[in-house]
Amino acid sequence: MTIIQPQLNDTFSKKVPKGDDHERLVCDTCDFIHYENPKLIVGCVATYQDKILLCKRAIQPQKGLWTLPAGFMELGENPEEGAAREAWEEAQAKVTIKDLLAVYTVKRISQVHLFYRAELSEPVFSAGIESMDVQLFRWTEIPWKFLAFPSVTWALKDYEKVMGSKHFAPFSNPEPYKDI
Amino acid sequence: MTIIQPQLNDTFSKKVPKGDDHERLVCDTCDFIHYENPKLIVGCVATYQDKILLCKRAIQPQKGLWTLPAGFMELGENPEEGAAREAWEEAQAKVTIKDLLAVYTVKRISQVHLFYRAELSEPVFSAGIESMDVQLFRWTEIPWKFLAFPSVTWALKDYEKVMGSKHFAPFSNPEPYKDI
Ligand SMILES: [Zn+2]
Ligand SMILES: [Zn+2]
Repeated sequence: MTIIQPQLNDTFSKKVPKGDDHERLVCDTCDFIHYENPKLIVGCVATYQDKILLCKRAIQPQKGLWTLPAGFMELGENPEEGAAREAWEEAQAKVTIKDLLAVYTVKRISQVHLFYRAELSEPVFSAGIESMDVQLFRWTEIPWKFLAFPSVTWALKDYEKVMGSKHFAPFSNPEPYKDI
Repeated sequence: MTIIQPQLNDTFSKKVPKGDDHERLVCDTCDFIHYENPKLIVGCVATYQDKILLCKRAIQPQKGLWTLPAGFMELGENPEEGAAREAWEEAQAKVTIKDLLAVYTVKRISQVHLFYRAELSEPVFSAGIESMDVQLFRWTEIPWKFLAFPSVTWALKDYEKVMGSKHFAPFSNPEPYKDI
Protein backbone atom coordinates (compact mmCIF):
# COMPACT_ATOMS: atom_id res chain seq x y z
CA MET A 1 0.00 0.00 0.00
CA THR A 2 1.56 3.33 -1.04
CA ILE A 3 1.34 5.99 1.63
CA ILE A 4 1.47 9.54 0.29
CA GLN A 5 3.02 11.91 2.82
CA PRO A 6 1.91 15.54 2.92
CA GLN A 7 4.57 18.20 2.44
CA LEU A 8 5.32 20.44 5.39
CA ASN A 9 3.58 23.53 3.99
CA ASP A 10 0.44 21.80 2.75
CA THR A 11 -2.84 23.00 4.22
CA PHE A 12 -5.78 20.80 5.16
CA SER A 13 -9.57 21.13 5.04
CA LYS A 14 -12.39 18.95 6.34
CA LYS A 15 -14.05 16.94 3.56
CA VAL A 16 -15.70 13.56 3.07
CA PRO A 17 -13.31 11.68 0.74
CA LYS A 18 -14.78 9.79 -2.24
CA GLY A 19 -16.10 6.37 -1.16
CA ASP A 20 -15.90 7.31 2.52
CA ASP A 21 -18.71 8.18 4.91
CA HIS A 22 -16.81 10.21 7.53
CA GLU A 23 -15.43 13.75 7.40
CA ARG A 24 -11.60 13.71 7.33
CA LEU A 25 -8.82 16.28 7.25
CA VAL A 26 -7.77 16.27 3.55
CA CYS A 27 -4.72 18.02 2.08
CA ASP A 28 -5.71 20.85 -0.28
CA THR A 29 -2.74 20.13 -2.57
CA CYS A 30 -2.17 16.39 -2.79
CA ASP A 31 -5.37 14.81 -1.40
CA PHE A 32 -3.45 13.16 1.44
CA ILE A 33 -6.08 12.12 3.97
CA HIS A 34 -5.17 12.65 7.60
CA TYR A 35 -7.09 9.86 9.29
CA GLU A 36 -7.55 10.25 13.00
CA ASN A 37 -7.24 6.85 14.57
CA PRO A 38 -7.83 5.52 18.04
CA LYS A 39 -4.63 5.36 20.05
CA LEU A 40 -3.24 2.30 21.75
CA ILE A 41 -2.14 2.43 25.39
CA VAL A 42 -0.11 -0.55 26.61
CA GLY A 43 0.50 -1.34 30.26
CA CYS A 44 0.87 -4.08 32.81
CA VAL A 45 -0.07 -5.33 36.23
CA ALA A 46 3.43 -6.35 37.25
CA THR A 47 3.96 -8.38 40.39
CA TYR A 48 6.82 -9.50 42.59
CA GLN A 49 5.60 -12.42 44.72
CA ASP A 50 2.23 -11.18 46.08
CA LYS A 51 2.93 -7.49 45.57
CA ILE A 52 1.88 -5.16 42.76
CA LEU A 53 4.05 -2.46 41.19
CA LEU A 54 2.55 1.04 41.16
CA CYS A 55 4.06 4.38 40.11
CA LYS A 56 3.24 7.78 41.61
CA ARG A 57 2.91 10.21 38.73
CA ALA A 58 5.39 13.10 38.60
CA ILE A 59 3.60 14.76 35.67
CA GLN A 60 0.14 15.93 34.69
CA PRO A 61 -2.49 14.68 34.18
CA GLN A 62 -3.16 13.20 37.62
CA LYS A 63 0.20 14.21 39.09
CA GLY A 64 0.69 12.71 42.56
CA LEU A 65 -1.71 9.83 42.00
CA TRP A 66 -0.78 6.17 41.55
CA THR A 67 -0.84 4.33 38.25
CA LEU A 68 0.14 1.05 36.67
CA PRO A 69 3.06 1.43 34.25
CA ALA A 70 1.35 2.27 30.93
CA GLY A 71 1.70 4.60 27.98
CA PHE A 72 1.29 5.10 24.26
CA MET A 73 2.45 2.20 22.14
CA GLU A 74 5.26 3.27 19.77
CA LEU A 75 5.89 2.38 16.13
CA GLY A 76 8.02 -0.72 15.56
CA GLU A 77 7.09 -2.66 18.67
CA ASN A 78 4.36 -5.10 19.57
CA PRO A 79 2.02 -4.48 22.51
CA GLU A 80 3.97 -6.80 24.84
CA GLU A 81 7.24 -5.00 24.04
CA GLY A 82 5.53 -1.65 24.55
CA ALA A 83 4.17 -2.70 27.94
CA ALA A 84 7.64 -3.89 29.04
CA ARG A 85 9.19 -0.64 27.76
CA GLU A 86 6.73 1.44 29.79
CA ALA A 87 7.54 -0.57 32.95
CA TRP A 88 11.19 0.21 32.31
CA GLU A 89 10.63 3.90 31.57
CA GLU A 90 8.28 4.63 34.45
CA ALA A 91 9.53 2.21 37.11
CA GLN A 92 13.03 1.18 35.95
CA ALA A 93 11.75 -2.38 36.33
CA LYS A 94 12.59 -5.32 34.07
CA VAL A 95 9.37 -7.26 33.66
CA THR A 96 8.39 -10.42 31.82
CA ILE A 97 5.08 -9.89 30.08
CA LYS A 98 2.66 -12.80 30.48
CA ASP A 99 -0.94 -12.99 29.29
CA LEU A 100 -3.39 -10.33 28.12
CA LEU A 101 -5.55 -9.24 31.06
CA ALA A 102 -7.88 -6.73 29.43
CA VAL A 103 -8.82 -4.60 26.43
CA TYR A 104 -10.53 -1.41 27.58
CA THR A 105 -11.86 1.41 25.41
CA VAL A 106 -12.20 5.03 26.49
CA LYS A 107 -14.34 6.35 23.65
CA ARG A 108 -14.35 9.96 24.84
CA ILE A 109 -10.62 10.20 24.11
CA SER A 110 -10.52 7.36 21.52
CA GLN A 111 -8.06 5.21 23.41
CA VAL A 112 -7.79 1.43 23.52
CA HIS A 113 -5.88 0.14 26.56
CA LEU A 114 -4.21 -3.27 26.49
CA PHE A 115 -3.14 -4.44 29.95
CA TYR A 116 -0.99 -7.54 30.45
CA ARG A 117 -0.09 -9.54 33.52
CA ALA A 118 3.67 -9.34 34.11
CA GLU A 119 6.28 -10.44 36.61
CA LEU A 120 9.44 -8.96 38.11
CA SER A 121 12.09 -11.59 38.74
CA GLU A 122 13.69 -9.38 41.40
CA PRO A 123 12.31 -6.51 43.52
CA VAL A 124 14.48 -3.99 41.68
CA PHE A 125 12.88 -0.72 40.56
CA SER A 126 13.08 3.05 40.97
CA ALA A 127 11.28 6.15 39.81
CA GLY A 128 11.65 6.83 36.08
CA ILE A 129 11.39 10.36 34.67
CA GLU A 130 7.57 10.41 34.75
CA SER A 131 7.32 9.04 38.30
CA MET A 132 8.04 10.59 41.71
CA ASP A 133 7.85 7.26 43.53
CA VAL A 134 7.52 3.56 42.73
CA GLN A 135 6.44 0.94 45.24
CA LEU A 136 5.31 -2.66 45.56
CA PHE A 137 1.93 -2.88 47.27
CA ARG A 138 0.27 -5.85 48.91
CA TRP A 139 -3.32 -6.25 47.74
CA THR A 140 -4.66 -4.88 51.05
CA GLU A 141 -2.41 -1.82 50.80
CA ILE A 142 -3.41 -0.60 47.33
CA PRO A 143 -4.27 3.12 47.53
CA TRP A 144 -7.68 2.75 45.84
CA LYS A 145 -8.70 6.35 46.50
CA PHE A 146 -5.52 7.67 44.94
CA LEU A 147 -5.43 5.82 41.63
CA ALA A 148 -4.86 8.02 38.60
CA PHE A 149 -7.21 6.63 35.93
CA PRO A 150 -10.35 4.49 35.74
CA SER A 151 -8.57 1.85 33.63
CA VAL A 152 -6.00 1.41 36.43
CA THR A 153 -8.79 0.59 38.88
CA TRP A 154 -10.45 -1.75 36.35
CA ALA A 155 -7.19 -3.56 35.60
CA LEU A 156 -6.46 -4.14 39.29
CA LYS A 157 -9.99 -5.41 39.99
CA ASP A 158 -9.90 -7.67 36.92
CA TYR A 159 -6.46 -8.88 37.97
CA GLU A 160 -7.93 -10.00 41.29
CA LYS A 161 -10.64 -12.03 39.50
CA VAL A 162 -8.08 -14.18 37.68
CA MET A 163 -5.45 -14.56 40.42
CA GLY A 164 -4.52 -18.21 40.18
CA SER A 165 -6.17 -18.70 36.75
CA LYS A 166 -3.93 -19.82 33.94
CA HIS A 167 -6.20 -19.39 30.92
CA PHE A 168 -8.97 -16.83 30.69
CA ALA A 169 -10.57 -14.54 28.17
CA PRO A 170 -9.38 -10.95 28.62
CA PHE A 171 -11.76 -8.50 30.21
CA SER A 172 -13.33 -5.47 28.55
CA ASN A 173 -14.80 -2.35 30.23
CA PRO A 174 -16.82 -3.16 33.34
CA GLU A 175 -20.58 -2.97 32.75
CA PRO A 176 -21.45 0.59 33.82
CA TYR A 177 -18.51 2.01 31.87
CA LYS A 178 -19.04 0.49 28.42
CA ASP A 179 -19.40 3.85 26.68
CA ILE A 180 -17.27 6.27 28.65
CA MET B 1 -5.65 15.95 29.41
CA THR B 2 -5.70 19.10 27.27
CA ILE B 3 -5.07 18.40 23.60
CA ILE B 4 -3.68 21.36 21.67
CA GLN B 5 -4.76 21.26 18.04
CA PRO B 6 -2.54 22.76 15.35
CA GLN B 7 -4.00 25.48 13.16
CA LEU B 8 -4.46 24.71 9.49
CA ASN B 9 -1.51 26.82 8.27
CA ASP B 10 1.00 25.75 10.88
CA THR B 11 4.19 24.12 9.60
CA PHE B 12 5.98 21.20 11.19
CA SER B 13 9.62 20.15 11.62
CA LYS B 14 11.22 17.00 12.95
CA LYS B 15 12.60 17.49 16.49
CA VAL B 16 13.07 15.49 19.67
CA PRO B 17 10.65 17.12 22.13
CA LYS B 18 11.89 17.92 25.67
CA GLY B 19 11.75 14.82 27.89
CA ASP B 20 11.21 12.54 24.91
CA ASP B 21 13.67 10.16 23.26
CA HIS B 22 12.14 9.88 19.76
CA GLU B 23 12.10 12.33 16.86
CA ARG B 24 8.56 13.69 16.28
CA LEU B 25 6.89 16.09 13.88
CA VAL B 26 6.57 19.29 15.98
CA CYS B 27 4.61 22.42 15.04
CA ASP B 28 6.90 25.43 14.49
CA THR B 29 4.32 27.82 15.93
CA CYS B 30 2.56 26.17 18.86
CA ASP B 31 4.73 23.15 19.74
CA PHE B 32 1.90 20.74 18.95
CA ILE B 33 3.52 17.32 18.62
CA HIS B 34 2.24 15.10 15.83
CA TYR B 35 2.77 11.62 17.30
CA GLU B 36 2.68 8.77 14.86
CA ASN B 37 0.92 5.89 16.50
CA PRO B 38 0.33 2.28 15.60
CA LYS B 39 -3.02 1.78 13.95
CA LEU B 40 -5.71 -0.60 15.08
CA ILE B 41 -7.36 -2.99 12.64
CA VAL B 42 -10.52 -4.72 13.88
CA GLY B 43 -12.05 -7.77 12.23
CA CYS B 44 -13.88 -11.01 12.84
CA VAL B 45 -14.11 -14.67 11.99
CA ALA B 46 -17.88 -14.71 11.54
CA THR B 47 -19.68 -18.02 11.20
CA TYR B 48 -23.12 -19.27 10.26
CA GLN B 49 -23.47 -22.83 11.52
CA ASP B 50 -20.20 -24.51 10.40
CA LYS B 51 -19.40 -22.00 7.66
CA ILE B 52 -17.07 -19.02 7.67
CA LEU B 53 -17.77 -15.65 6.05
CA LEU B 54 -15.14 -14.41 3.59
CA CYS B 55 -15.11 -11.38 1.29
CA LYS B 56 -13.41 -11.16 -2.09
CA ARG B 57 -11.68 -7.79 -2.24
CA ALA B 58 -12.86 -5.34 -4.92
CA ILE B 59 -10.07 -2.85 -4.18
CA GLN B 60 -6.31 -2.75 -3.86
CA PRO B 61 -4.28 -3.94 -2.07
CA GLN B 62 -4.84 -7.64 -2.81
CA LYS B 63 -7.81 -7.06 -5.11
CA GLY B 64 -9.47 -10.36 -6.06
CA LEU B 65 -8.21 -12.23 -3.00
CA TRP B 66 -10.31 -13.37 -0.04
CA THR B 67 -10.30 -11.71 3.36
CA LEU B 68 -12.08 -11.75 6.67
CA PRO B 69 -14.14 -8.60 7.24
CA ALA B 70 -11.66 -6.17 8.87
CA GLY B 71 -10.58 -2.56 8.68
CA PHE B 72 -9.31 0.47 10.56
CA MET B 73 -11.03 1.12 13.86
CA GLU B 74 -12.75 4.52 13.89
CA LEU B 75 -12.95 7.17 16.61
CA GLY B 76 -15.92 6.84 18.97
CA GLU B 77 -16.36 3.09 18.84
CA ASN B 78 -14.91 0.17 20.76
CA PRO B 79 -13.11 -2.68 18.98
CA GLU B 80 -16.17 -4.96 19.06
CA GLU B 81 -18.36 -2.26 17.50
CA GLY B 82 -15.68 -1.61 14.90
CA ALA B 83 -15.46 -5.29 13.99
CA ALA B 84 -19.26 -5.50 13.62
CA ARG B 85 -19.26 -2.31 11.51
CA GLU B 86 -16.65 -3.75 9.16
CA ALA B 87 -18.72 -6.95 8.73
CA TRP B 88 -21.66 -4.75 7.80
CA GLU B 89 -19.66 -2.50 5.44
CA GLU B 90 -17.78 -5.27 3.62
CA ALA B 91 -20.31 -8.12 3.74
CA GLN B 92 -23.64 -6.44 4.57
CA ALA B 93 -23.84 -9.00 7.37
CA LYS B 94 -25.25 -8.38 10.86
CA VAL B 95 -22.95 -10.20 13.23
CA THR B 96 -22.83 -10.66 16.98
CA ILE B 97 -19.29 -10.23 18.22
CA LYS B 98 -18.23 -12.88 20.74
CA ASP B 99 -14.77 -13.33 22.25
CA LEU B 100 -11.35 -11.98 21.32
CA LEU B 101 -9.55 -14.53 19.16
CA ALA B 102 -6.20 -12.83 18.57
CA VAL B 103 -4.01 -9.75 18.84
CA TYR B 104 -1.51 -9.67 15.97
CA THR B 105 1.13 -7.04 15.28
CA VAL B 106 2.54 -6.21 11.86
CA LYS B 107 5.51 -4.08 12.89
CA ARG B 108 6.60 -3.22 9.36
CA ILE B 109 3.42 -1.16 8.89
CA SER B 110 2.79 -0.51 12.61
CA GLN B 111 -0.58 -2.19 12.74
CA VAL B 112 -2.20 -4.08 15.60
CA HIS B 113 -4.99 -6.41 14.47
CA LEU B 114 -7.74 -7.46 16.87
CA PHE B 115 -9.80 -10.39 15.56
CA TYR B 116 -12.97 -11.54 17.30
CA ARG B 117 -15.11 -14.64 16.91
CA ALA B 118 -18.56 -13.66 15.69
CA GLU B 119 -21.85 -15.21 14.60
CA LEU B 120 -24.47 -14.51 11.95
CA SER B 121 -27.98 -15.35 13.15
CA GLU B 122 -29.12 -15.78 9.54
CA PRO B 123 -27.23 -16.51 6.30
CA VAL B 124 -27.94 -13.01 4.99
CA PHE B 125 -25.08 -11.08 3.38
CA SER B 126 -23.99 -9.46 0.13
CA ALA B 127 -20.99 -7.64 -1.28
CA GLY B 128 -20.38 -4.23 0.28
CA ILE B 129 -18.61 -1.44 -1.60
CA GLU B 130 -15.10 -2.86 -0.98
CA SER B 131 -16.05 -6.45 -1.93
CA MET B 132 -16.79 -8.09 -5.28
CA ASP B 133 -18.18 -11.26 -3.70
CA VAL B 134 -19.07 -12.60 -0.25
CA GLN B 135 -19.50 -16.28 0.54
CA LEU B 136 -19.83 -18.73 3.41
CA PHE B 137 -17.15 -21.41 3.22
CA ARG B 138 -17.04 -24.79 4.92
CA TRP B 139 -13.67 -25.36 6.61
CA THR B 140 -12.58 -27.77 3.84
CA GLU B 141 -13.48 -25.23 1.16
CA ILE B 142 -11.47 -22.25 2.43
CA PRO B 143 -9.38 -20.86 -0.46
CA TRP B 144 -6.08 -20.96 1.46
CA LYS B 145 -3.99 -20.06 -1.58
CA PHE B 146 -6.09 -17.00 -2.31
CA LEU B 147 -6.22 -15.29 1.08
CA ALA B 148 -5.36 -11.60 1.01
CA PHE B 149 -3.21 -11.04 4.12
CA PRO B 150 -1.07 -13.10 6.53
CA SER B 151 -3.26 -12.12 9.48
CA VAL B 152 -6.30 -13.61 7.71
CA THR B 153 -4.52 -16.95 7.45
CA TRP B 154 -3.37 -16.73 11.08
CA ALA B 155 -6.85 -15.87 12.34
CA LEU B 156 -8.42 -18.79 10.48
CA LYS B 157 -5.80 -21.26 11.75
CA ASP B 158 -6.12 -19.94 15.31
CA TYR B 159 -9.90 -20.11 14.99
CA GLU B 160 -9.60 -23.82 14.21
CA LYS B 161 -7.51 -24.41 17.38
CA VAL B 162 -10.28 -23.13 19.65
CA MET B 163 -13.34 -24.51 17.84
CA GLY B 164 -15.46 -25.82 20.70
CA SER B 165 -13.49 -23.95 23.40
CA LYS B 166 -15.40 -21.45 25.50
CA HIS B 167 -12.61 -19.70 27.36
CA PHE B 168 -9.11 -19.25 26.02
CA ALA B 169 -6.34 -16.70 25.99
CA PRO B 170 -6.20 -14.84 22.66
CA PHE B 171 -3.44 -15.73 20.25
CA SER B 172 -0.60 -13.48 19.14
CA ASN B 173 1.56 -13.76 15.98
CA PRO B 174 2.51 -17.38 15.18
CA GLU B 175 6.11 -18.16 16.10
CA PRO B 176 8.00 -17.56 12.84
CA TYR B 177 6.20 -14.25 12.29
CA LYS B 178 6.79 -12.47 15.62
CA ASP B 179 8.67 -9.56 14.05
CA ILE B 180 7.20 -9.12 10.58
ZN1 LIG C 1 -0.37 17.56 0.38
ZN1 LIG D 1 0.71 25.01 15.72
